[in-house]
Amino acid sequence: MNKPRVGIIMGSDSDLPVMKAAADILNYFKIEFELTVVSAHRTPERMFDYAQGAHKRGIQVIIAGAGGAAHLPGMVASLSPLPVIGVPVKSSNSIDGWDSILSILQMPNGVPVATVALNASKNAGILAAQILGASDEKVLERVLTYKKELKEEVDQKIENLKQKGF
Amino acid sequence: MNKPRVGIIMGSDSDLPVMKAAADILNYFKIEFELTVVSAHRTPERMFDYAQGAHKRGIQVIIAGAGGAAHLPGMVASLSPLPVIGVPVKSSNSIDGWDSILSILQMPNGVPVATVALNASKNAGILAAQILGASDEKVLERVLTYKKELKEEVDQKIENLKQKGF
Amino acid sequence: MNKPRVGIIMGSDSDLPVMKAAADILNYFKIEFELTVVSAHRTPERMFDYAQGAHKRGIQVIIAGAGGAAHLPGMVASLSPLPVIGVPVKSSNSIDGWDSILSILQMPNGVPVATVALNASKNAGILAAQILGASDEKVLERVLTYKKELKEEVDQKIENLKQKGF
Amino acid sequence: MNKPRVGIIMGSDSDLPVMKAAADILNYFKIEFELTVVSAHRTPERMFDYAQGAHKRGIQVIIAGAGGAAHLPGMVASLSPLPVIGVPVKSSNSIDGWDSILSILQMPNGVPVATVALNASKNAGILAAQILGASDEKVLERVLTYKKELKEEVDQKIENLKQKGF
Amino acid sequence: MNKPRVGIIMGSDSDLPVMKAAADILNYFKIEFELTVVSAHRTPERMFDYAQGAHKRGIQVIIAGAGGAAHLPGMVASLSPLPVIGVPVKSSNSIDGWDSILSILQMPNGVPVATVALNASKNAGILAAQILGASDEKVLERVLTYKKELKEEVDQKIENLKQKGF
Amino acid sequence: MNKPRVGIIMGSDSDLPVMKAAADILNYFKIEFELTVVSAHRTPERMFDYAQGAHKRGIQVIIAGAGGAAHLPGMVASLSPLPVIGVPVKSSNSIDGWDSILSILQMPNGVPVATVALNASKNAGILAAQILGASDEKVLERVLTYKKELKEEVDQKIENLKQKGF
Amino acid sequence: MNKPRVGIIMGSDSDLPVMKAAADILNYFKIEFELTVVSAHRTPERMFDYAQGAHKRGIQVIIAGAGGAAHLPGMVASLSPLPVIGVPVKSSNSIDGWDSILSILQMPNGVPVATVALNASKNAGILAAQILGASDEKVLERVLTYKKELKEEVDQKIENLKQKGF
Amino acid sequence: MNKPRVGIIMGSDSDLPVMKAAADILNYFKIEFELTVVSAHRTPERMFDYAQGAHKRGIQVIIAGAGGAAHLPGMVASLSPLPVIGVPVKSSNSIDGWDSILSILQMPNGVPVATVALNASKNAGILAAQILGASDEKVLERVLTYKKELKEEVDQKIENLKQKGF
Repeated sequence: MNKPRVGIIMGSDSDLPVMKAAADILNYFKIEFELTVVSAHRTPERMFDYAQGAHKRGIQVIIAGAGGAAHLPGMVASLSPLPVIGVPVKSSNSIDGWDSILSILQMPNGVPVATVALNASKNAGILAAQILGASDEKVLERVLTYKKELKEEVDQKIENLKQKGF
Repeated sequence: MNKPRVGIIMGSDSDLPVMKAAADILNYFKIEFELTVVSAHRTPERMFDYAQGAHKRGIQVIIAGAGGAAHLPGMVASLSPLPVIGVPVKSSNSIDGWDSILSILQMPNGVPVATVALNASKNAGILAAQILGASDEKVLERVLTYKKELKEEVDQKIENLKQKGF
Repeated sequence: MNKPRVGIIMGSDSDLPVMKAAADILNYFKIEFELTVVSAHRTPERMFDYAQGAHKRGIQVIIAGAGGAAHLPGMVASLSPLPVIGVPVKSSNSIDGWDSILSILQMPNGVPVATVALNASKNAGILAAQILGASDEKVLERVLTYKKELKEEVDQKIENLKQKGF
Repeated sequence: MNKPRVGIIMGSDSDLPVMKAAADILNYFKIEFELTVVSAHRTPERMFDYAQGAHKRGIQVIIAGAGGAAHLPGMVASLSPLPVIGVPVKSSNSIDGWDSILSILQMPNGVPVATVALNASKNAGILAAQILGASDEKVLERVLTYKKELKEEVDQKIENLKQKGF
Repeated sequence: MNKPRVGIIMGSDSDLPVMKAAADILNYFKIEFELTVVSAHRTPERMFDYAQGAHKRGIQVIIAGAGGAAHLPGMVASLSPLPVIGVPVKSSNSIDGWDSILSILQMPNGVPVATVALNASKNAGILAAQILGASDEKVLERVLTYKKELKEEVDQKIENLKQKGF
Repeated sequence: MNKPRVGIIMGSDSDLPVMKAAADILNYFKIEFELTVVSAHRTPERMFDYAQGAHKRGIQVIIAGAGGAAHLPGMVASLSPLPVIGVPVKSSNSIDGWDSILSILQMPNGVPVATVALNASKNAGILAAQILGASDEKVLERVLTYKKELKEEVDQKIENLKQKGF
Repeated sequence: MNKPRVGIIMGSDSDLPVMKAAADILNYFKIEFELTVVSAHRTPERMFDYAQGAHKRGIQVIIAGAGGAAHLPGMVASLSPLPVIGVPVKSSNSIDGWDSILSILQMPNGVPVATVALNASKNAGILAAQILGASDEKVLERVLTYKKELKEEVDQKIENLKQKGF
Repeated sequence: MNKPRVGIIMGSDSDLPVMKAAADILNYFKIEFELTVVSAHRTPERMFDYAQGAHKRGIQVIIAGAGGAAHLPGMVASLSPLPVIGVPVKSSNSIDGWDSILSILQMPNGVPVATVALNASKNAGILAAQILGASDEKVLERVLTYKKELKEEVDQKIENLKQKGF
C-alpha cells in the first residue's frame, strides 16, 4: 500500500455513516487515504499532533467532518499548512445544521477552511481529488472522466424518462 | 496585588472594546483578574498552555470572547477543568451574530461552555462573580448588593418618569 | 443524605426526559442535588419562593430547563444571587429550538444566564460540577478524571476503528 | 382624571421612544391609560405586584414592551387574568429582533400573550382600543372612525400621486 | 342557544385539527362561539362579508388561523373593527413555521393582529376569554379559576414527582 | 396614450422609491403601464375593485409591491386571473426582509404569486416584459436586445478593468 | 399533438415527484407542455442548448425546478428571453428549504426568475397558465373557471362542516 | 511575467472592493494570478469559455466571488475540473449574506465548491496558496512562514496590551 495522500478525520465515530462517502469516492479516484477519529474537544492533544504532523507524513489534503459547534476543521486548519476541507455534519441536536455550517465556514482572516455542503462528504472527497489534480495530471484525468460519467448518468435518466414517461 | 481568580481572554485585540466591560464589572466586585489575547487560530500553542495551566495558577473561572467561527471558548473548555464562560462577539463580517453564538453555544456532550448573550461581556463578569460567590460568602454578599443597586436604579427611573412625564 | 448543592428545576414534567441527564451526571460526580418542577408561567409564586430561598438552603448552583418562550432560567436568575445554568429544551411546537435558545440566552445586562446547547442537560450538570470544582478541590479532581475518561473512550473507538475497519 | 383602563409598561426607560406611540394613539382614542417602567429582571417584586393588582384597580388591558430575552409580557400574563399585549422591542444587541419576538410570542399553552409586530407599540395601542371596543360601543365607534381615516389618508396620497406624478 | 360572541375561522378545513383546541377551551369557559372555514385566497368575497359583518351580528372577538402566506388574520383585521387573534398554523410545506408567523405578526401600523404562538389555538381561545373578561366580570372569574387550575395541575405533578421519583 | 398593459401597485407611497424602478424599465421596453397606491389593509375595497377589474380594462400583468406582512400581491392574485408579480419591499421595521418575502412567496396551492428578489422592482418590470413577450414578438425582440446590452455593459467593464487595472 | 407551449425542466429525476404536479395542472388547463431533466451542474451544455433554443421552438414559458444550491432556474433565465418560473425543491440535505429558495429568488438586476413557494410546482403550472392567459382569451377563461372551482370546493367543505360539525 | 496559476473572477466589478484582498495575498505568496469579471447571468457564454478553458491554460485553482443568488462559483465548478473556491459576497439587497452563502455552499453531490466565509476573499487567496502548496514545496514553505507571521503579530499585540494596559 502506498502512503496516504488524504487524511479523513471526524470528531466522533457517530459521524462515520456521513463521512464514509468521502472514503468511497477517493477509492473511485484511486487516491490513497487514511481515516480515523480525532476529537477537538475530547482528544485535543491528539488533534494537535495529527494536524501538525500530517504534512510531514506526506498527507496533502485533510478532510475534517464534525457536527454542532464544529471546531475540528478550523482548529486543524490553524495547526496545519495543508488545505483543510470541512464537512458540516448535522448532529442529533443540531439546529437544522446551521451550527456546524457556521462553525466551520465563518473562519477569521488567515485561517481558511474549504467548506462543503451539509453532510456532503462525497463532495469533500471529490474536492480533495480536484486539489490533487491541480498538480497531478493523472488525477486530473480521472476528474474529467468522473464529470463525463455524471453527465452520462443524467443522459440515461433523460432517455428513461422519454421512453417510459412519468 | 493578589493572584487573579478570573482569566479574561479574547481571540483578538479588536474584541477589546466589547470585552472591557467584563474587566470593569469584576473591578466593581473587587475580584482580581487578568486580561490578555489568546487566539485559538493564530496562537494555538499559547491557547493550549493557557488553558491547561490556568487552574494550576489559581484561576477559578475563565471568560473567553470570540467572534465568527468562535472556537476559543470551546477549545479552552476542552483543555481546562474550570468553568468557561463564552462571550459571542459580533465581528465585522458576522452573519448577525449567529456564527459566534452557535459556535460557542452548541458544544457536544462532555464539554460545556457557559454562553452569555451577544457581546454581553458585562454579564460574563457578573456570572464569574456568581460562580465565585457560590463558595465565597463575601462575593455572594456583593452580588446581592449589586442586585439591590440594579433595582434602585430602576426605581429612580420610575420616579423620574413620574415627575417629568414622558 | 447530605444537603443538596445543586437545584435542578424544569418548567414542566414533560421536560423530564431531557433534564434527567443532568441528574445522572451529577450522580456520577457524587454531587448532591434536588430535582423538581417549577413553572414560571403556571406557578409564579413557587418560582419566586424557590429562587429567593435557594441560596439560603445551601444550594450553590441552579440548573433550569424550559422550552418555547423559556422564561424560567432568566426569572430565577433575576431572583437569585446564584449562578443559573439554562437548558433550552426543544418543545413540541418549537421553531427549531430558536425560541428557547434566544429566550434563555439573550438576557439583559445585569442578569446573566449560563446557557448550554439545545437539550444539553448533561452539559448543564458538568458545568455545575465545574462551578463547584472552582472552589472545591475534590470536585475539581473528579472533573479532571471525567475529562480523562472522555479521552479514553475516544481512544477505544479509534482502536476499534483501526481493528475492524469501517 | 378618570381611572386608567390600559396599563402601558416597559422593561426599561430606554424602551420609551418605541413605546410612546402606544400612549399617543390611546390619547387619540380618548382612552385613559397609565405608563411606567416595570422590569421583570431588575424589579421582579414590582412586576408581581403590578401584574397581580392591575385588574383590581380597574385596568382592563396591559401593554408590555421589552427587548432581548423579553420576559415581561409573558410573566405579566402569567400573573394577571387580563389580556396582555406584548410589544417586541428591538434592543441594541438584538439578533435582528428574533430574540424579543420569540420570547414574547412562543408562550406555552395556558398563558397567551397577544403579540404585535416588532416595535409596533402603535398597533398595541390600537389593539387595546379594539379590545375595549369589543364591549364598549363608544370605543368601537372610534375604531370605525379611525379605520375610515386610515382609508382617507391613503385616498389623499393616491390623489397626490395622480396630480403630481412620481 | 345564545348568540356567538367569538368567531373562529380558518383558511382551510385542513387547519381544523389545530384549530379545534380553540373551540374546546371556549366551551370550557362557557363562551358561545361559531366555527367555519373562510379562505382569504379562495373565497375572498366570503371573507369580506364575514369580516365586515361580524361585529354587527354580535361577534366580539375573531380568531383566525392560517398557514403559509397566511393572509386571513390580517385581511380580516383590515375589514373588521373587532380584535382579531391570529393563529399561525404550520402547514405541510411550511418553512418551519416562519412563513405563517411573519405573515400574521408583522402587520403595518394601523391594523394590528393579536398573534399567538405557532399552532397555539388553545391560547387563542384563552386570549379571547380574557378579552371578553376585560369587561365581563363572570368571564374574568372563570379566567381566574382557570389560572388556579393550571397551578393545581402543576402542584399535582410536583407531588407525583416527589412520591415516585424520576 | 395607449391603454396600459401593466398595472404597478404598491401598499403605500413610502414604497415608491423602491417601486419606481419597475416603471423606469417598462418605459425602456416601451410598454404602457399605470402606477398607483392600493393598500390591502387600509383600502381593502379599492384592492377588490382594482384586482377584479384589471383584466377587463386590458391590463395583462400586475406588479404589486409591499413590505412587512405583505398581503397585497397574494390578495390581488386571489381576486384576479392575471399573472401577479410580487415585489417584497424591505420596510423600516422589517426582520431583514424575511417577513415580506415569506408573506408573498409562500402562497397556498391554487393562487401563485411570481415573486422576485427583495426590493427588486426592476426585475419585476423585466419579468412583466418577458410575460408580454411570450406572446408579443416585438416585446420579445426588445427583451433579446436588453439581454445583449446587459452583456455589452459587462464587456465594457471587463475592458476597463484590463486597461486600468484594479 | 400540438407543439408544447410550456417547458417543464428539473435538475434531477429525483425532483419528479414534486414537479409532476405542474404537468397535471397544465393538463387540466389543456396546455401542451414538454417535461425533461436538465441539470445545470451535470449537463451544463444541454442546459445552454435548451435555454437558448426554447423560444425558437415555440416554448412560451419555462418552469424550472431544483433543490439545494439551485442554479437551474436562474441560469436558464440568463440564457432565455422567456419568462422562467422557478420552483424551489426541498432536497434531502436541504437547510429547511432556505437554500433552494434563496438560490432561485435572489437573482441580480437584469435577470428575474418568477419564484413560487417551496415545492409548489402546481402553482408554477397555474402561473404558466396565467402568463399564457394574459394574451390568450381561451386560457384566461379556463383560469377564471379554475378560480370558480376553487371557491366551490371551499363552499362544499363549509357545507360539510355545517352539516356534520367538527 | 509567468503564466497565472490562479484565476480570480467575480460576477460584477462592484465585487472588486471585496475581491481585491485575494489578489493582494496572492502577491504576498508570490503566486501568479489573473483577475477579471465573468458574470454567470449576464455573460453566460464567457463563463462557459472561461471555465472550460482555464485548466488548459495552466490555471490550477479558480477563485470565484459573487453575491445574491450567486451561481458563478457553482457553474464554474460544473464546467471545470479544477478546484473552485467560492467567496460569498454580501450584496446591497442581500438577506444578511444568507443568499450568497447558501447559493455557493449547498452544491449537489458531484460538483463541490470550496466555500469560504462571507466576504472572505483574503482567505480564498490563502486557500489557493495551500492548494498549490499541497504539491509545491516552495509555496508550502511560504504558507508555513505566513502562519508564523500571524502568530508573531498576535504576540506583538499581547506585548502591547501588557505594556500599555487597556
